[in-house]
Order: sequence, then C-alpha cells, then structure tokens
Amino acid sequence: AYAQSSVTLFGVVDANLRYVKNSGLASNYGMSNSGLSSGRLGFRGVEDLGGGLKAGFWLESDVNADTGTFSSTGKMFQRRSTVSLMGNWGEFRLGRDFAPSSVHSFKYDPFGVIGIGGQNVTSTTARGLSNYYRHDNAVGYFTPNFGGVQAEFMFAPDEQAANNTGRHMSGRLSYENGPVSASVSYGVTNVATAAGTLGKFKQLGVAGSYNFGVAQLVASVYRDDLPFGTYGATTASAQTAGSEDRWLIGVNVPVGNHLIRASYVRTNARKGPAAYNDSDASKIAIGYVHNLSKRTSLYGTVARVSNDGAANFSIAGGAPTPGGWSGNSTGAEVGLKHSF
Amino acid sequence: AYAQSSVTLFGVVDANLRYVKNSGLASNYGMSNSGLSSGRLGFRGVEDLGGGLKAGFWLESDVNADTGTFSSTGKMFQRRSTVSLMGNWGEFRLGRDFAPSSVHSFKYDPFGVIGIGGQNVTSTTARGLSNYYRHDNAVGYFTPNFGGVQAEFMFAPDEQAANNTGRHMSGRLSYENGPVSASVSYGVTNVATAAGTLGKFKQLGVAGSYNFGVAQLVASVYRDDLPFGTYGATTASAQTAGSEDRWLIGVNVPVGNHLIRASYVRTNARKGPAAYNDSDASKIAIGYVHNLSKRTSLYGTVARVSNDGAANFSIAGGAPTPGGWSGNSTGAEVGLKHSF
Amino acid sequence: AYAQSSVTLFGVVDANLRYVKNSGLASNYGMSNSGLSSGRLGFRGVEDLGGGLKAGFWLESDVNADTGTFSSTGKMFQRRSTVSLMGNWGEFRLGRDFAPSSVHSFKYDPFGVIGIGGQNVTSTTARGLSNYYRHDNAVGYFTPNFGGVQAEFMFAPDEQAANNTGRHMSGRLSYENGPVSASVSYGVTNVATAAGTLGKFKQLGVAGSYNFGVAQLVASVYRDDLPFGTYGATTASAQTAGSEDRWLIGVNVPVGNHLIRASYVRTNARKGPAAYNDSDASKIAIGYVHNLSKRTSLYGTVARVSNDGAANFSIAGGAPTPGGWSGNSTGAEVGLKHSF
Repeated sequence: AYAQSSVTLFGVVDANLRYVKNSGLASNYGMSNSGLSSGRLGFRGVEDLGGGLKAGFWLESDVNADTGTFSSTGKMFQRRSTVSLMGNWGEFRLGRDFAPSSVHSFKYDPFGVIGIGGQNVTSTTARGLSNYYRHDNAVGYFTPNFGGVQAEFMFAPDEQAANNTGRHMSGRLSYENGPVSASVSYGVTNVATAAGTLGKFKQLGVAGSYNFGVAQLVASVYRDDLPFGTYGATTASAQTAGSEDRWLIGVNVPVGNHLIRASYVRTNARKGPAAYNDSDASKIAIGYVHNLSKRTSLYGTVARVSNDGAANFSIAGGAPTPGGWSGNSTGAEVGLKHSF
Repeated sequence: AYAQSSVTLFGVVDANLRYVKNSGLASNYGMSNSGLSSGRLGFRGVEDLGGGLKAGFWLESDVNADTGTFSSTGKMFQRRSTVSLMGNWGEFRLGRDFAPSSVHSFKYDPFGVIGIGGQNVTSTTARGLSNYYRHDNAVGYFTPNFGGVQAEFMFAPDEQAANNTGRHMSGRLSYENGPVSASVSYGVTNVATAAGTLGKFKQLGVAGSYNFGVAQLVASVYRDDLPFGTYGATTASAQTAGSEDRWLIGVNVPVGNHLIRASYVRTNARKGPAAYNDSDASKIAIGYVHNLSKRTSLYGTVARVSNDGAANFSIAGGAPTPGGWSGNSTGAEVGLKHSF
Repeated sequence: AYAQSSVTLFGVVDANLRYVKNSGLASNYGMSNSGLSSGRLGFRGVEDLGGGLKAGFWLESDVNADTGTFSSTGKMFQRRSTVSLMGNWGEFRLGRDFAPSSVHSFKYDPFGVIGIGGQNVTSTTARGLSNYYRHDNAVGYFTPNFGGVQAEFMFAPDEQAANNTGRHMSGRLSYENGPVSASVSYGVTNVATAAGTLGKFKQLGVAGSYNFGVAQLVASVYRDDLPFGTYGATTASAQTAGSEDRWLIGVNVPVGNHLIRASYVRTNARKGPAAYNDSDASKIAIGYVHNLSKRTSLYGTVARVSNDGAANFSIAGGAPTPGGWSGNSTGAEVGLKHSF
C-alpha cells in the first residue's frame, strides 16, 4: 500500500489453479481467484480533525484476477464504500459495509469465506442471499474498546415505500484478551416469503478462538433462520432454501513462515419437510501456506464435501450426481497471493 | 489528494440519511449520497512542456457511497475523461466533459445540482435529458483570462451517419472581479422529436453573484427550450417533457467554520397546451454546513417542493399524490462529507 | 506514473478527431480514442523477496477518453490482471493477459492494433474473435533472456465440463540483438464450429524488424486458420469468417522529436469458396507524431482500405458500398496523447 496524509492505495491480487471432481460429473480444471485472500483494490484514508476527532473514508473494489473483472454485482466498490467519523466515543460509519451478523464467517474460519475451504461452500443462505455479507445504505456504529470488550451495530433502512423488504439490523459483541477471542452476533433482515408476505431472516452466531502458541483453535456456530417453508404451504421452496445450522471447528498451525490450516464444517438443514431436514452436508478442508514475505504467499488447499439426503453442495461446477442425492465434491487449488 | 509530478489521486465520499414525504404517499427513510459535494474518485495531472505549454489529463468517476456503485450510466469516468493542451492562448480539451451551457446549474446555486436542495429537483429537462450536463466526444476550448473576462466553448459531434441527433454546441462568457461574478451561457443540442424529425434543444442561461462579505447573493435564470409539443400534434409528450423557464435566488452565509445556505427556485412550464403551461413548481431549501476541517463537513438540508397544475416534481420516491395534481414534496437530509 | 515500493499508478489518455469516408456511404466526423497509444489506467508493483526471487502484480483497465467508459467487454481490468513470481528461472504468471500468439500484432506494426492504421482494421479474425488478443484464466511462463533469445508460453484452460471450447495454448520465440529483432509465434484455440463440432483456430506468425538508424523497417506475416468453412457444408459462414493470411511491411522514421510511420497491410482470405478466397483487402497508412515530451504527443494518421471481391472492411462506420463489393474506406485522425 502507498500511504500519505490523505489517501492510501492498497490491494490484493490472488489467483490459483483449481481442480474439482463432483460425483457423477466429469472432473474440471480451471483458474480461480482469491483462494487465500480476497482480491481487492482499495482507497482509504484518515484525517485527524483535532480534539480526538477523526474522519475517514474507505472505497474497496473486488478484483477477480483470473478474468479481470470486479464484482459480478455490478457494484464498483462492492466490498466497502463508507465515510466515517471517529472519536473517543467510537466510530460512526455510513455506506455499504460488511454486516456484524456475518463477521464470524471470515473471522472465525481458517479459510474465511473464500476459496474451496470456506464454510460458505456448504451454506444455502450464504450462497443464496445477495446481502448475506454486506448491506447498502448502512449506518454503522462501533463502540470504543473497553478492556477487550467491543460492540458494533448496523442498521440498513429498506428504502421501500410499500413494505420493508431488505431492512437489516444486526450487532456483534466481542471480547479479545491475549490468546482468547470470543464473539456473539445476531441479525435480522426483512425478506419477502414465497407466500408473498414479509418474513424475517434471522442470524445467530457464536464463535471463539484460543491461541495455544503452537496452534490456534477456532470454533463457530451459525443458526440461519429463514421463513421459507416455515409458514404456510410453501413446501417446495422449503426444500431448496430453508433454514440451516452451520458449525465449524478449525485450526491454524504456524511453523516459521509456513502455515497449516484445517477445518471441519457441518451444515444441518432445519425447519423443512423431513426429507429436507435430512439433507445435510459436511466438509473437511486442509491447507498449506508458504509465506514468501508478509505480502506474498504460495498456497495449496484440498477440500471434500459429503452430502446427505437431497443436499447437493459442490465446491464448484454443478450439483454432484445427476439425481442430486448423496453425492460428494472434491477440490484442490494451488495459488499465488500478493498484497500491496 | 495525493500529488506528485505526474498524477494526483483525489476524491469525495459523501453519504447522508434522508427523509422524504410526498403528499398522498407514505413517508420514506433511506440513505442517499452527495448531499454536499458529489461523490467522486479521480486521477488528474499536469505536465509542464516548457515554453508556457502544458499537457494535462483528468479521469473522474462517480462514487455513490450508499451503494458502492459508480455511475448508473455505465460510464466509468462519467464525470470527466479528458486530455488537454494548455498555453498562454488558453486550453484545448478533448473527451467527455461538462457542457458550458449547464455550468450555471452548479456554479450559481448554493446547493449545486446535487442533494435535495439543487435546482434540478424541479426541472424536467435536467432530469430527463441524459446529456443535459455532460457530453461525450467533446472538443472544448477555454480562452485565457482577460482581466476577469473568460469564455469557454464546446462542440460535440453527433457521430451519426443518417442524421445529426446528439450534436451539441455551447458556450459561456463570464466575468469575475472581486465580489462580482456574472455569466451568460447558450447551448444547442440536436434531439429527435416525437414526430420523428430533428429538433433543437436550446438552453439560455444568465447568472450572477455578489459577495457582500457577510453573505453571498446568487441569482440565475435558465430558459430550456425543447421542440417536443411545440410542432405538430405531439401534445401528449408536450405535457410531460416540454420547455421550461427556471430561475433561482440563493444566499450563502459563512459564519466562522459554519455555512448557512438557502435558495428559492421557480420552474415555469412553457410552450405546451394551457394545462401544461400552468403546471409549474417552486422549491425552497435551507441548509447548514459545519466544516470540521477543509476536507470534512457535517451538513443538514431541508427542502420543500410545491407543485401547481399537473406538475408532480418530487425530491425522490415517486410523484406526489396519486393523481399527480398539485401535490408537494418535503425532504430532509443529514450527512457527512469527506474529501481527499 | 507514480512509483513507490509497493505500487505504481500509471496510464494513458489519448483522444482524437476522426474523419471516415466509406464508398457508397456519407462521410462521418467524430471523436475516437487511442490513436497513438491505448488509453489505460493501471496499478502495478514488484516486491523483492530476496535470493533473486520477486513477486509482482499488474491490474490494467481500458480508458476510452472520448466517452469516459472502460472496456465494452465489462471487464474492469480487461487489458491485464495478473500476479507473478519471478526468478532467475524466468517468470510465472497467473490471470488475464495478452496471448503470445498475438504479440506480433502490436510489436511489429508501426500502428499497433489501435487507431485507423493498425493491421486489425482489415482482419476478420482479429475483429471477430473476442479472445484473439487476450485470454482469461491464463498461466504464462516467460523464460530468462539467453543472449537475446527468449521464449514465452501461455496455457488457458477452458473451464468447460462438456467440451473444451475456449482452451488456448500458444508460444512465442524471439531474438533481439542490437538493431535486429525477430520473432515467431504459434497458437491454438478451441472453437465451436458452425457444424457444432469442436474445431481449432490456429495462428502462425513470423515477424522481424531491423533498425538502420535513420529508419526502422518492420515486416510480419500472420496465418489465421479457422475451421469454419473448411470442413462440412458450412459454406455460408465460410464467406464471412474464414481463414486469412495477413502480411505487413512498415517503417518508423524518427527525426528529432518527430516520427514518421507508415505501413502496407495485405489480407488474403483462404480456404473458403472461390468467391470468398478472392475477397481480399489491402490498407496503406501513413502517420506523423510530434513528441512534445516523452509523455505527450500530437499525432495525425491517414489510412485507406481497398477491398477486393466481397471483402467489405472499413475503418469504421459500416460496410463500404451498399452491396459490399469492392468498396474502399478512407480515414484520417488527429489527436493528443498523454501518459502518466
């Protein structure tokens, strides 16, 4: 990154070669991006206003190095576009930003929400809801740090005249103290149900990590509650986009300038018909990172998804097995990440 | 902004909370952007070629901080993308740029053409014509400053083989001397009429300001002449997109690091059927700006649009009153602007 | 360009006024861009990892100064988005990049592949195939320089499960020694044929230049082999998108801070029906560049395309003559280029 008084230019370019084999389908080779760190190009800055007051801005775009595109959402600064006022009372932030309710998904996962190792691979909600991670029009507030305890809140108005679809509220409370990190988050987003009524997508997350020195252990639980299929006769959609519990245990083992990381993720479908409730999945991933410097790393990851029932999660490239029942998906990627 | 010999990186991030109430409709809360200064990200530079000659470039993108998007036009450098040659004979400029015929709308308006206070809120032409403010393919020439007198011209070819729709010519003559600023502008843009023939959109603007020290007074008059509804039996379109006169008086009152600004705008529909000619509107806006530094400001604005006849201008969120007759629109926004 | 340890910001803004007259059509005036150097905005950097190892990134966007747009492909970093690892063993590169098989088209052409003078004006393949110049998902390898001899390779996987359409392999071998430059390139890209089968688009290029001091002579030959019309009864498509040979001779004459450049390009249609094989074209172009500095230039170019048979190449603005037979196209452009 380049830094001077008013603006810092920063970014990540990360590309990899990926192999995927889904049961019942031909294997596939290709190039992907962001296997270790999300590709990005950003501009940020902080201005000291005196008296403990500061102003800041942050504009951050996606960079998909394999194809040269930015976000498929069409939003140039998809990752973040905010203006902030900061003081000893905390930070007040306006604009598009990451939601407190989904922070755990990258903060308490050795693989984050990217690449073939992330917990989002086996999540219907994280993959299916366009604003699962970030919200437009968000008002954010971050408290100061009180001896390791900190809280953050977000409210994003719906901007709808007729109904309140899209309105989002969430918060997160965290504690950081030496080797200990613990966090709880909760969020509610108004969604339109299949029945045409207004429902609420509720997200509860509990996560923590402990650093033993030789290794950091990570664990997290998400309960993503969707109204689809829960109320009324919307059983069809219940089978494909219902509620889910998702839990993860992971480990990061640094060895000199190397890092070994691994995780086990389990996704349990909930609140649907019996067949849907049995449509669960698990994923195991293991990765190796060789840090050539603080900015540049070589990495490799292998992962395998095992589906139960009608679950048909895959790392990429279509549903495993033609019928979609109890297939599995195996992937590997080897890449190069460079930040600036 | 970061500056070194060849390139300066600069920008504005401005987001606000907005409330709008249109008569006959539910009130609406949301987030908007650019209430004090247009959100932007830009790259510009000037090279000294020696002998009084200079070259320059300017690439400037929109930044809509509330949603992370750039311009909805799909043009990355929607605001400006030009290359220039400058000498003691003036400046010769090539590329997409702001038209001299519309400069008054931001230069002689306390609220510019942004936010809820700008004169464009009650303008059919400014809102409806995609190239009202800027033109692609423009050749610009700016004279030197002769004792406060300066002129600028633009010609944008149509690039049409069959007809000349889109061709634009405009110019502006200004005088600046101490507290006095005066300017006159004129522009002609070829447009396709509802009858299928080629018509001319003509813009005449006269504006001025005087700085009394305790306050700066601003006044401007625009006559936007469209062929729609003027010729032939195109009465239907005449009612929705006809000619208009628009005049404004405004004031800027700086008090230390505070600024109070206010304006009254009147829009008179012209050259249509009687019902259309009676469809006028007025808007009053008052704003307060608290400059935390030269780069960072908190601001608040309130505005109210009053429609006459069939006019149905609104600050945002749809036409006031279901029938569209004689409704009004009230808005307020509070925001934070940061430039770099 | 601005350079510090981690990132360099660089670019080109180039706009011109263009006149085109195609036989049988009205003449057309307009503004174009990139007549001397391709408009671009880029971010690149190199990190020294020690031990002869380096990492690098390169993100480069198109800039069309006349309209303020970036690439019409929708790819933000259309020109290049790569991450590299470099050592005394060469460079290994991942991401979207220029193909070795098409490097000659800008390296051995006084006008490159831009403006009205480039050899692509009279090429069906270069204009018609979206990945003629660049490929997504590319793995590139560049050998070290062995006494002036260097080679580069690219492999871009198809990422297709069903067939291998889009897969690309190419390489280039070059020799540079004082005034001598020579290069041979070959590429194969899998394409879907009109018959629905998988075919191969093959590109063979041989090129060289010699710098006599007062002038540099350039020559190149391309053989672009498409399966269309070659196999089966796909005669219709054979007439519009068949194989072609393209050869060029050119000259660059520097005179102080001036440059005179000229080229003759001949395109011969091949492997189609007799009428198609006679549909050839030639183009002559001459240009003048006045370098105001290393970064800023004024330039002018004139070019004329002469079509034979059914060939209907034009500089811009539609096929010459309504029937498309034996027309010609004449163009001129005058512009300003500035780099940073």
